[in-house]
Amino acid sequence: MSLFLTLFQDTPATEVTAAVEQINGDMGMLWMLIAGILVFLMQAGFTLVESGMTRSKNAVNIAMKNLLDICVGSLIFWLVGYSLMYGDTSNGWFFWGGLFQGEGADLFFQTMFAATAATIVSGAIAGRTKYTTYIVFSIVMTAIIYPIAGGWQWQGEGWLTKLGFIDFAGSSIVHSVGGWAALVAAFMVGPRIGKYVDGKVLPISGHNQVLATLGVFILWFGWFGFNGGSQLAWGGADSIAASNVVLVTNLAAAAGGLGALITTWIWYGKPNLGQTLNGTLAGLVSITAGCGNMTTEGAVLTGLLGGVLVVFSIEFIEKKLKIDDAVGAASVHGVAGAFGTLAIGLWGVDGDTAIGLFNGGGASQLGVQATGVLAYAVWSITLSFIVFTILKKTMGLRVTKEIEIEGLDVHEHGSIAYPGVRQREFDDK
Amino acid sequence: MSLFLTLFQDTPATEVTAAVEQINGDMGMLWMLIAGILVFLMQAGFTLVESGMTRSKNAVNIAMKNLLDICVGSLIFWLVGYSLMYGDTSNGWFFWGGLFQGEGADLFFQTMFAATAATIVSGAIAGRTKYTTYIVFSIVMTAIIYPIAGGWQWQGEGWLTKLGFIDFAGSSIVHSVGGWAALVAAFMVGPRIGKYVDGKVLPISGHNQVLATLGVFILWFGWFGFNGGSQLAWGGADSIAASNVVLVTNLAAAAGGLGALITTWIWYGKPNLGQTLNGTLAGLVSITAGCGNMTTEGAVLTGLLGGVLVVFSIEFIEKKLKIDDAVGAASVHGVAGAFGTLAIGLWGVDGDTAIGLFNGGGASQLGVQATGVLAYAVWSITLSFIVFTILKKTMGLRVTKEIEIEGLDVHEHGSIAYPGVRQREFDDK
Amino acid sequence: MSLFLTLFQDTPATEVTAAVEQINGDMGMLWMLIAGILVFLMQAGFTLVESGMTRSKNAVNIAMKNLLDICVGSLIFWLVGYSLMYGDTSNGWFFWGGLFQGEGADLFFQTMFAATAATIVSGAIAGRTKYTTYIVFSIVMTAIIYPIAGGWQWQGEGWLTKLGFIDFAGSSIVHSVGGWAALVAAFMVGPRIGKYVDGKVLPISGHNQVLATLGVFILWFGWFGFNGGSQLAWGGADSIAASNVVLVTNLAAAAGGLGALITTWIWYGKPNLGQTLNGTLAGLVSITAGCGNMTTEGAVLTGLLGGVLVVFSIEFIEKKLKIDDAVGAASVHGVAGAFGTLAIGLWGVDGDTAIGLFNGGGASQLGVQATGVLAYAVWSITLSFIVFTILKKTMGLRVTKEIEIEGLDVHEHGSIAYPGVRQREFDDK
Repeated sequence: MSLFLTLFQDTPATEVTAAVEQINGDMGMLWMLIAGILVFLMQAGFTLVESGMTRSKNAVNIAMKNLLDICVGSLIFWLVGYSLMYGDTSNGWFFWGGLFQGEGADLFFQTMFAATAATIVSGAIAGRTKYTTYIVFSIVMTAIIYPIAGGWQWQGEGWLTKLGFIDFAGSSIVHSVGGWAALVAAFMVGPRIGKYVDGKVLPISGHNQVLATLGVFILWFGWFGFNGGSQLAWGGADSIAASNVVLVTNLAAAAGGLGALITTWIWYGKPNLGQTLNGTLAGLVSITAGCGNMTTEGAVLTGLLGGVLVVFSIEFIEKKLKIDDAVGAASVHGVAGAFGTLAIGLWGVDGDTAIGLFNGGGASQLGVQATGVLAYAVWSITLSFIVFTILKKTMGLRVTKEIEIEGLDVHEHGSIAYPGVRQREFDDK
Repeated sequence: MSLFLTLFQDTPATEVTAAVEQINGDMGMLWMLIAGILVFLMQAGFTLVESGMTRSKNAVNIAMKNLLDICVGSLIFWLVGYSLMYGDTSNGWFFWGGLFQGEGADLFFQTMFAATAATIVSGAIAGRTKYTTYIVFSIVMTAIIYPIAGGWQWQGEGWLTKLGFIDFAGSSIVHSVGGWAALVAAFMVGPRIGKYVDGKVLPISGHNQVLATLGVFILWFGWFGFNGGSQLAWGGADSIAASNVVLVTNLAAAAGGLGALITTWIWYGKPNLGQTLNGTLAGLVSITAGCGNMTTEGAVLTGLLGGVLVVFSIEFIEKKLKIDDAVGAASVHGVAGAFGTLAIGLWGVDGDTAIGLFNGGGASQLGVQATGVLAYAVWSITLSFIVFTILKKTMGLRVTKEIEIEGLDVHEHGSIAYPGVRQREFDDK
Repeated sequence: MSLFLTLFQDTPATEVTAAVEQINGDMGMLWMLIAGILVFLMQAGFTLVESGMTRSKNAVNIAMKNLLDICVGSLIFWLVGYSLMYGDTSNGWFFWGGLFQGEGADLFFQTMFAATAATIVSGAIAGRTKYTTYIVFSIVMTAIIYPIAGGWQWQGEGWLTKLGFIDFAGSSIVHSVGGWAALVAAFMVGPRIGKYVDGKVLPISGHNQVLATLGVFILWFGWFGFNGGSQLAWGGADSIAASNVVLVTNLAAAAGGLGALITTWIWYGKPNLGQTLNGTLAGLVSITAGCGNMTTEGAVLTGLLGGVLVVFSIEFIEKKLKIDDAVGAASVHGVAGAFGTLAIGLWGVDGDTAIGLFNGGGASQLGVQATGVLAYAVWSITLSFIVFTILKKTMGLRVTKEIEIEGLDVHEHGSIAYPGVRQREFDDK
């Protein structure tokens, strides 16, 4: 009888448990796949933001750069990138697992992250960079700079993981790595003609603020997949966790937009659209690290401060550092990314446990977060600087003055974005 | 032996049942979360429709209003809105559960509905309303007008629920509440300069019909989440029900677009794009109440009539009432929303049971539906009227004549949407 | 005791198995529904690509055609189309199951495919075709040409299924059927005024390359649903298969874009945006047949060749055949669709078994694939030719020369897309 009792109590339970595990795995894969599809659309968002915030004479070039990022990025990450990030052979700093690693929903999801890191740089150097030069940098970014940096934390055996670093969906790993590279790129390429004239800093308006707004909405939409999908699972506690990630992502974006809107109203006297859009993105970038480690209140605070910070950061980089970052990419992705990563150490939680300096969790997590922030900044700035220095001495970084004035579209690509309408900017020359 | 028999028959069954329930809950949460993400993108759709259907000199202002709706709406609904709508303490008319209620996928999904209700008003009063005034109204909408109205039906213990009122996804609760507020707002703010001149009603063309079309496609896309997600569950019968909701939503939208296309062809002599877009939206609004209570034939009829109705409603409001609703929001959301709610009482079903007047279900459901339609109209019109009256006497509703002619973008926000292209409308002044 | 043993071993297993089957069915329905929603958005993508790649004076007409496709298509496919494609009564060539067949997620998903097939034709004949004529053809397409062709393979008892033909998501069934109809349509309607002048082939630029780019990103996004959803199931092996479909779809699109980019760089001297966009779409079309029967390497090869091929195909049709296909629809959908279908016979796999000529699988699958490609070409070309011949002799195909020059928008629809901006193209006349 005891045999039956044992069988009776164990076997079905085992069977049910196995079935539930299988189904949870299936649901997790479904969520990751859909989340990856949402992240894909962020490429459209980046194209619209970058294009809308710059002049129409370079809109074709911007489309071509963003297409290149996803086309080359997808192939490179499949070829070597995934392996360099998630390969089993590792010393905690570098990873490798052979060519063509990764498969299915996982490779798809991770590919979309790599393409995002690459595309961040594109905006900063819009309007004066050679297309060939950009191609080389985009390849280096998705093949080397991003995957190695990512492995430190997301491979599971990396040195930052072991340190206890938290960066749930990549405020540092994706956004600040992209943002710091954008800063270096903008510095190395130099400002657009007409940006700094006789000691004055002149504004260069974007050509379509409606498309820029659409781009931000699309990015916001895709970000739910970016952050929510980073749970990498669904079912039971994972369902609740991933739902909460999406919720706090939205709250932080909302707070970021509002923070920038109010800041510009006070600072410039009028609520400014371009900065409100940047504030929304900064809110999203800021919460990306801590979206699994924040109360809703903490998320709102993080997004709000990210949105305020980005306004001043853009001013600082443009006017004090005199670096011409055409769309504020270094501020939106680099500065807000670093801030968001630190915020976990300031008011983050781990389940019900406080881990932040200001909510009674002590200073140790903040130290770890600062280490990660610094490491990603050093890595991205150093590598980008080396690559752009080599490119400068070999291929050259900039188009000629004539091409820049007339627009990259005509000279680099042989067509213009809006042939039916004369744009005033063409009358500048 | 009987002990074993009992154990044997019950325990595994219980275990399996519990596992299935847990998984159904997980699948339901996944569907609600994804549906909420789809609904979010409707904010982009509203921005494009509103912007495309009005003049370019106010496009920045429209983007800023729509951003505000989702930013402030998300924060307000998290702070108090959810509690005022779903709080446990209630008398059937008002609800409260403390600050910061709601969580995860549920709060996220409901927040997107609140933001939708607010944003409907924005289009009606485009081109002449002060930004500060709009902010105050948007806050009141998401903090008070919408959540209290919503609680009557969706809290579960509200007076309309107890009456047997049906409004599956909010033809009345979201759309007509928004639409009636839009009508009051357009009336109170007054028409745009140039709309009514010497007793004539003049058309004021939108500036970008391609973006308006894109906006409608995005809204249609998001509406699958709006209606389908309102099943609030997935698994077994819920899967089939939610799928059917999405199917009939598409059929009604298609019928609404076709209804308006044909109507304008007959009425104006040519098939008109703007009205076809409105017809599509009217089809969507009309089926929103009954998408869980319609056969496919009933849904097509509802959408078709919604699309026909909206053409005449827009004409009536513009030419007879002489209220300048810049994008037809009162007709699309108010009139079609009320009609769709009534349609359940005309040819609705409850599973296999007819509940409509014309399909043999008697008149009682129609009476209940009419009560709900009336209640939402009275509530929204009264509250909106009070708020706009107060705003008129304090902050003022309109910008000055000079600002209106030159465009709100320059004066309220300090930038224009398309700096590279001279728009003909600027030459009007 | 043996009774208990039997009960014990069987009953719970059965119960668990039944529960798992139910849940797999639910997950499959969820995935199909979401996939169908993604496919819906492709209508927006087609509108933007077609509109952006042609002149602004016909943009309203293009929006009206695309709206018509989804509105009429949804209704027709619900009324008869689904039944003609999936009906139980069949001789292997024709199918019927009564009016109003299909339901829920399945009908919804299939409807979106029918609307896609119809909308492909729209672009090829942009700028000179009567709206009424287009309506008739669109109805015939979704009511007869597409569903009958689809039944041959997807009904399950069709003659191509029995032959062993493989077309997972419709490179031939949807895209080449649409593409060949587009070719016939463009031939029958004749070229736009100004395309072929004094023996020269003149370019007619599109009016908005940014919107065309956005359109391609949206199509790419929707295509994940188009191909991935064609698994028609989720759970266990289906989850892995569908995820892999999405992965290879992305790789093929990336390779297609890159293939066209490089080809134009070599061929024209500059990397061209319009052709890169077409290459991306060609990559997507090419992989649609074999996305369940390709290794990742095979998918990349298929997409890459699709992208190269489309550049030369567009040149060939435009310059050698002198058929004015305004957006390259015949090349993107017809040629790339046929090529992708054949590619399964060249380097396809069936699980771990090679079935292609070049990977050691022999020539038999290639023969079957060629039969299917030919059958769809003959069917679509013949039917389209008959329909357009009848339309030409009755309603007429083209607008008058005056209307074509001034633009279809004013004359056919009574409004223009961008009333605020004078387009240079209007100065041509």
